[in-house]
Amino acid sequence: MERRNVGILVFDGVAVLDLAGPFEVLTRTRLEPGTESRRTEESAPFDVFTVAKTREPVTATGGLVVMPRHSFADAPHIDLLVVPGGFGTRPVLQDAETIDWIRRSAASAERVASVCTGALVLARAGLLDNRRATTHWGSFGLLASLGHNITVDREARFVDDGVLTSAGVASGMDLAFHVVETFFGKDVADETARYIEYRRG
Amino acid sequence: MERRNVGILVFDGVAVLDLAGPFEVLTRTRLEPGTESRRTEESAPFDVFTVAKTREPVTATGGLVVMPRHSFADAPHIDLLVVPGGFGTRPVLQDAETIDWIRRSAASAERVASVCTGALVLARAGLLDNRRATTHWGSFGLLASLGHNITVDREARFVDDGVLTSAGVASGMDLAFHVVETFFGKDVADETARYIEYRRG
Repeated sequence: MERRNVGILVFDGVAVLDLAGPFEVLTRTRLEPGTESRRTEESAPFDVFTVAKTREPVTATGGLVVMPRHSFADAPHIDLLVVPGGFGTRPVLQDAETIDWIRRSAASAERVASVCTGALVLARAGLLDNRRATTHWGSFGLLASLGHNITVDREARFVDDGVLTSAGVASGMDLAFHVVETFFGKDVADETARYIEYRRG
Repeated sequence: MERRNVGILVFDGVAVLDLAGPFEVLTRTRLEPGTESRRTEESAPFDVFTVAKTREPVTATGGLVVMPRHSFADAPHIDLLVVPGGFGTRPVLQDAETIDWIRRSAASAERVASVCTGALVLARAGLLDNRRATTHWGSFGLLASLGHNITVDREARFVDDGVLTSAGVASGMDLAFHVVETFFGKDVADETARYIEYRRG
């Protein structure tokens, strides 16, 4: 089976659940239902990894320290790019190297997604221009100001307008299940939700 | 303000969301509502940290590598002990040093909680004897076999019978909000859920 590579960007001040929610959904997805299939990667349709500017440890919000699996320099091709949010997005907005890397990775990716205030970073990279998008409710105004003609959806858990964006933190899991459903159908998404006991909205 | 120390056990093969769900809920809880209060620790009622047998890197399910903040030897007093689950619980069940540490930490803790198959570990430590408890649906039978007179609740998202146990993976967040509500009331729990956009059941 051909697996899709999922690259989740990590940086200091990334919100833990923004990263861990989609990570868990996508790493636990199996095309073969049940508990046994989760013990191996045999029917796993995604290879999910963290990627950062360098492979130095990253300190997420609340002090959780994560070791990125790849740096920008050594990351494999990314099919699904996920940009999480958190207070750490503010310095990222000013970081030309990271914004450039996102723009390049997005250009060759099949799909691009953000969780929470990760949408601000996608907007800064120009990826939300002329699209509908959402973000954490505390950043609706800021999101609109960071691109050209971004229509901010203030109600949706997630928006799929070519580029995928989710509302705050926990809604990244709903976005991830939407990705699973888009690629592999509702049965695979629902069975994975049942496996991790997540109540899809 | 006196903060409660929350120690979350980590080990190879811990499920990412079992750890990250309660971590996010408890680190984002603030007694002062709103977004600004989340930028500092001023009104944070919990100091949340990971703890492992040693401070060597831990590889969670799906390959996420986490650096534990404390080892058993250097961990401060723990008020709330959280034992997550995952396939990595199976070797932990055979690990006398870890089971002993859990028993000792639990004895001096205000509250003890497990997420998902973390309940198996609490059962092995004797902490669920003569109690109602729950775990991931795939491990109901195993849970009952690991202690004396454990009544397995097959319906609840979480059970609070002195010791707290949750059902699978994502339900650890419901357990964490229950802890917040128990300590600080429903308003603080609901406002924190609104902040991280989690839909409490």
